[in-house]
Amino acid sequence: MDIAELGQKILNRDRRALARAITLVESQRSDHRKQAGELISELAKHRRQALRIGLSGTPGVGKSTFIESFGLMLTAQGLRVAVLAVDPSSARSGGSILGDKTRMERLSRDPNAFIRPSPSQTHLGGVARRTREAVALCEAADFDVVLIETVGVGQSETVVAEISDLFLLLLAPAGGDELQGVKRGIMEIADVILVNKADGDLKAAATRTCADYSGALRLLRKRPQDPQGFPKALMVSALEDQGLAVAWDEMQKLNDWRREQGCWDQRRADQAQYWFHEELRQAVLSQLNSPEAQSEIQHLALQVADGSLSSATAADLALTRLNIKTG
Amino acid sequence: MDIAELGQKILNRDRRALARAITLVESQRSDHRKQAGELISELAKHRRQALRIGLSGTPGVGKSTFIESFGLMLTAQGLRVAVLAVDPSSARSGGSILGDKTRMERLSRDPNAFIRPSPSQTHLGGVARRTREAVALCEAADFDVVLIETVGVGQSETVVAEISDLFLLLLAPAGGDELQGVKRGIMEIADVILVNKADGDLKAAATRTCADYSGALRLLRKRPQDPQGFPKALMVSALEDQGLAVAWDEMQKLNDWRREQGCWDQRRADQAQYWFHEELRQAVLSQLNSPEAQSEIQHLALQVADGSLSSATAADLALTRLNIKTG
Repeated sequence: MDIAELGQKILNRDRRALARAITLVESQRSDHRKQAGELISELAKHRRQALRIGLSGTPGVGKSTFIESFGLMLTAQGLRVAVLAVDPSSARSGGSILGDKTRMERLSRDPNAFIRPSPSQTHLGGVARRTREAVALCEAADFDVVLIETVGVGQSETVVAEISDLFLLLLAPAGGDELQGVKRGIMEIADVILVNKADGDLKAAATRTCADYSGALRLLRKRPQDPQGFPKALMVSALEDQGLAVAWDEMQKLNDWRREQGCWDQRRADQAQYWFHEELRQAVLSQLNSPEAQSEIQHLALQVADGSLSSATAADLALTRLNIKTG
Repeated sequence: MDIAELGQKILNRDRRALARAITLVESQRSDHRKQAGELISELAKHRRQALRIGLSGTPGVGKSTFIESFGLMLTAQGLRVAVLAVDPSSARSGGSILGDKTRMERLSRDPNAFIRPSPSQTHLGGVARRTREAVALCEAADFDVVLIETVGVGQSETVVAEISDLFLLLLAPAGGDELQGVKRGIMEIADVILVNKADGDLKAAATRTCADYSGALRLLRKRPQDPQGFPKALMVSALEDQGLAVAWDEMQKLNDWRREQGCWDQRRADQAQYWFHEELRQAVLSQLNSPEAQSEIQHLALQVADGSLSSATAADLALTRLNIKTG
């Protein structure tokens, strides 16, 4: 594959080239990894930037409908929109979010939209790097907005938040005390909570749910990088195209404020450093992932669990037996 | 130091011996570390267990008053109570929580109580191991309840939660929309939220704050290991000794339930395994802590922040230059 040519095509907004490049960064073959690295470095020189919007929500909250309606609203304004998915669960469940493009039939046919389904087999450790590189490719292909969707399994929200400029949490209306299973820290990550399905019979429930989350958000620590009133909860109906323009206004308001305050560039720089340190950490920790190390560790963990070895003693034993140097 | 003799004295509830042993586990000298390891291993054979209660709250919520009133209530019931502090901030601030024993004058004079101030110099990485060992020493010295206090700086709440059987969050009453700075994930960690100062002029505000948090807790995912109604928010007045008995009842109810369900033993076993893996991780990651490594990493991080190197490329460069093997 001619990497220089591929890069030039991406810069020229060639969608086929973009799709091929994303397949390349998803590959685990070492020659592909090397080519992907070259491509990303080359494209980075052009410093094109999109607005990266992370979007999380459990199945059933209407993510596909939201992405389609929201995406079509943006393309109608002349913006070019790319949609990517982070789905670490797909390897297990066999299914994949965005896997069925027909769920977003109109958006997928829009010439100003690009939808990339989640790969059906996902090597968990590589999710973050692969997604970051796919986002970088979409930016090089001159998209204005990159939507990064996650179902919020495991650490995927943290991954997406550390790649995004803005983070949206999509919720469904809930009755009274019904639990929504909002995960640890998610309200701290979210910039805007959108209560979807604020239509028909669910409208009253959506109003109550939105008020509940507005109240809960007020109890959280204010983030110094945000203007008054953020993070905030809003109601939308993706089905009836209600509230989407207001939500987009609020996102832009927050984004403009951060750009003016310099928080935006700082956040990007912080994220790059975060991923650098994270790549380093993961690489160093991979010393504990060999089959030999895993077998030793599991053996010792049983003795720790039944109380016959202390955590500290077991750790010392493992390091000695595995001949791992420490600092 | 005769470790066998020191251990025997601790088992005989000798408070001076306990204090000396805690000083030993706080030491960073390698011969002391070795002795501490022997002592902990020896005492572990006796498998004495206390109820470990973690307590977090920002300065000003009345932690000292609460610990004194709560501790005196427990000792009046014939229980022996130890109080420890986790304060990773003390190294910076120079101050230390529990540093001024006079704040808990009555409890510190109680023969059934043992109060250990936080060491004024704290090596951050060693906080968790040191605290776990101090807790183990208090259990060996036959205390019934070990209170582990933290101001909640950085990761200290997670550390304390992973050492505790129960975790309390102490809050002050807040007016209306006033922000309390409740940190990410803290509501997920807390088993019981106590709104203190529910007395005098603050009683109405405490009632409202308690209701706010009760509402917020209902929005969180229910934990499978807990009975209906937990985690819960309660009002107390440490100053007027109000609500403490009810709070203690609730703690015991939760604790009894977990013991009956087998969650209690499982939690202890999980915590031991958590700390084993954490010790391993920290030891392996310490390869990145040498002055040489830090200097290289900081140099590369600047290039990552200004966009001249990608995170992945910089990480590969660092590992090659530092000659660190990966799995």
